[in-house]
Amino acid sequence: MTGTHIEPVTPASFPELIQLIAGLAAYEHLDPPDEAACERLFADAFSHPSRYEAFLAIADGVPAGYVTFYCTYSTFLARPSLYLEDIFVREEFRHRGIGRELFSFCRDIARERGCGRMDWQVLTWNDPAIRFYESEGGKRLDWYSYRIG
Amino acid sequence: MTGTHIEPVTPASFPELIQLIAGLAAYEHLDPPDEAACERLFADAFSHPSRYEAFLAIADGVPAGYVTFYCTYSTFLARPSLYLEDIFVREEFRHRGIGRELFSFCRDIARERGCGRMDWQVLTWNDPAIRFYESEGGKRLDWYSYRIG
Repeated sequence: MTGTHIEPVTPASFPELIQLIAGLAAYEHLDPPDEAACERLFADAFSHPSRYEAFLAIADGVPAGYVTFYCTYSTFLARPSLYLEDIFVREEFRHRGIGRELFSFCRDIARERGCGRMDWQVLTWNDPAIRFYESEGGKRLDWYSYRIG
Repeated sequence: MTGTHIEPVTPASFPELIQLIAGLAAYEHLDPPDEAACERLFADAFSHPSRYEAFLAIADGVPAGYVTFYCTYSTFLARPSLYLEDIFVREEFRHRGIGRELFSFCRDIARERGCGRMDWQVLTWNDPAIRFYESEGGKRLDWYSYRIG
């Protein structure tokens, strides 16, 4: 693919990340981050160590998509895992391989950092994403996800 | 509950953690960590920052159970989450409230650290654990878990 590259979010490009997060929130029928949340996202991206990492896919010179991830840990593998928190491509940039490029980018980072796995979750109704992940070799696990608070 | 307390794993008590991890692995029909994995688990528990945190429940003076957890991050809440990786009580110590004590301990840590949520996963066949989590207020999410590598 030509004309696309992936770059880390910087303080200067941070507003683009917020717009993309709002785009993913709309897609998932969730509220976008409010002003206080945006401030926390900024602080947590640029703290040392940062709480998450964020990268933008730039296509035709504009932000077309993004990923956020962080390291988790498997006590059974005794290795870190890369957890893909968000992956999103704006609607007008879909079907150009940008999602695939972002996904591969994360997989490469997982390898470079010695992670035993890459993990993520997908909403049960999100069939296009499920097809995409399975085409990339992702395996669905026999686990339920639970949450409190 | 009397006679039980929760304490962080130390280099001295680390072999007890390994025995408990092996107990959980057996319960989940998985292989226990091999020698190299045990060495990585040790290094990753006591690095700065550590890759995970581990606590033992001591009952009647012996290690009866354990938890491991780490912080993840929700870009939508813009807050850290506490992710409960392992929670386990040895069979001969069950039905004494030790699991509940470990679970509450993690929930308290999540609150203290400003986490917006506590997240975890459970094997779909693990009905006793599912009943326990739901009795504690855990909500099952409409997400599938995927993994690669």
